[in-house]
Amino acid sequence: MKKLLPLLLAALPLLVGAAPPPKPPTPNEILESAPADAWQTVPAEDLMLIDLPHGQRIALALAPAFAPVHVANIRALARGGWYDGTSINRVQDNYVTQWGDGTEKKPLPATIAAKPPAEYERPAAGLSFRPIGYPDAYAPETGHVAGWPAARGGQQAWLVHCYGMVGVGRGLAPDTGTGAELYAVIGHAPRHLDRNIAVVGRVVGGMEALTALPRGTEQLGFYKPDAPHPAIVRVRIASDLPAAERPVYQVMRSDAPAFAAWVTARANRNDAFFVRPAGSVDICNAMPPVRLMVK
Amino acid sequence: MKKLLPLLLAALPLLVGAAPPPKPPTPNEILESAPADAWQTVPAEDLMLIDLPHGQRIALALAPAFAPVHVANIRALARGGWYDGTSINRVQDNYVTQWGDGTEKKPLPATIAAKPPAEYERPAAGLSFRPIGYPDAYAPETGHVAGWPAARGGQQAWLVHCYGMVGVGRGLAPDTGTGAELYAVIGHAPRHLDRNIAVVGRVVGGMEALTALPRGTEQLGFYKPDAPHPAIVRVRIASDLPAAERPVYQVMRSDAPAFAAWVTARANRNDAFFVRPAGSVDICNAMPPVRLMVK
Repeated sequence: MKKLLPLLLAALPLLVGAAPPPKPPTPNEILESAPADAWQTVPAEDLMLIDLPHGQRIALALAPAFAPVHVANIRALARGGWYDGTSINRVQDNYVTQWGDGTEKKPLPATIAAKPPAEYERPAAGLSFRPIGYPDAYAPETGHVAGWPAARGGQQAWLVHCYGMVGVGRGLAPDTGTGAELYAVIGHAPRHLDRNIAVVGRVVGGMEALTALPRGTEQLGFYKPDAPHPAIVRVRIASDLPAAERPVYQVMRSDAPAFAAWVTARANRNDAFFVRPAGSVDICNAMPPVRLMVK
Repeated sequence: MKKLLPLLLAALPLLVGAAPPPKPPTPNEILESAPADAWQTVPAEDLMLIDLPHGQRIALALAPAFAPVHVANIRALARGGWYDGTSINRVQDNYVTQWGDGTEKKPLPATIAAKPPAEYERPAAGLSFRPIGYPDAYAPETGHVAGWPAARGGQQAWLVHCYGMVGVGRGLAPDTGTGAELYAVIGHAPRHLDRNIAVVGRVVGGMEALTALPRGTEQLGFYKPDAPHPAIVRVRIASDLPAAERPVYQVMRSDAPAFAAWVTARANRNDAFFVRPAGSVDICNAMPPVRLMVK
């Protein structure tokens, strides 16, 4: 492109009086016109559905490529109905909502890994990592992998704690996160948790059911024992439901040209409202778009 | 300190078998032991109290040093009781809660600036700017000014859109933000708004009343006209209340040594939970701590 510059500059006088160049599309215009193959369907095997009272449902996309043992645990717990009847136990403002077995005493099935490895990062080799190209406070490099927000450093890659990302609660020892308690980020990205805990997925639907809740009044936002704990009625893996009952979510492919255009447009907002586009965007303000295709 | 290094190294063998060096304090330990003069009281003239139904109250610290005309407008509207009887009109998940005159038709008093200047940034000269010292996606430099999260570039400085920061809603024209509608950030910092809108303060108390609300179902998270809109019962400036009725909030001084230690500890978490401290912290994960001294 650089070689073309003098030619273009020389041509500029010819353009005086011509129509102004077309305005680049806004982020939403890019999404609306993206081709079908810019989207990937969340596999039913990776889609976990969490049913709450009053018909509320949370849909969670799992990330087995990053935390295979943890995801296998979570799938097994869902399939065994183990989460059914547990509850939301912690809502800490600007931090996390946490759910599962708040008693920490419910026996775990023998089939799951009781001491899973610390799947906090993985080899970057084999991943198609698309760098975002802007500075980051926490990682040498951030970007996207197969529709996930990620970071890379040295030979390793890891998922980052953006709004809506889901991790596995653990005790002080790294091998104590069985999947019995999960959390979703409900505030400013707590990126200091990156590489300190296993990130296993992302809320792709029903986020409001985790964010519009009363904050817990105990330390760390836990609900008081005698306060109402929203019930987890039923948790299932979508592939175990009859095909007609499976919702279908799609996430934008991070290797699609439309995604690259969308990230650029998010960094250089030209919607009528903006008087000064930032020229940059943080990884957590560039979460791959999600759409619900079949409810 | 560099000159001392060889001496210390030489002394090391003597330490073998001695007690390990004391562990540096955690962020919370630093706050608990900070001296009284590490904290500054929010002036009653800059403290706005927003009363909602059922005794809920939001406390908002105003930032006249950054947006003097907008803050004067807001104070005048509060003093005239103009906000009383308005409502919360918009709750957009992972973005903002917005309140005030949703009709956009309530007549404004003649005393306020109907077309305030675009106070989106101000000269950096005269401000005591403490750089945070870590990279940022959006600004050449971020840091703190008198207990506020800020950025600096060229000769200008501005407040940044972190969680809980409050700005003045406006139309497409920059001079349309009268103060009739205000918003607070309730999600990941929408830093692309920096320098595109007037930031006028920060929620220092009662944030839950803005975050634990049902999300609006109309475009941009506006509530449907016939959906319940939480009422703004009464808005006052604390200095107009009898002294005995004024709450007292304190914000940590960003020029206090304890604050510097706290930021360093936030960047290098050594709480027992962390297996890999980040070595860095984003400006919006280093919001100056707030405490309520008198309720």
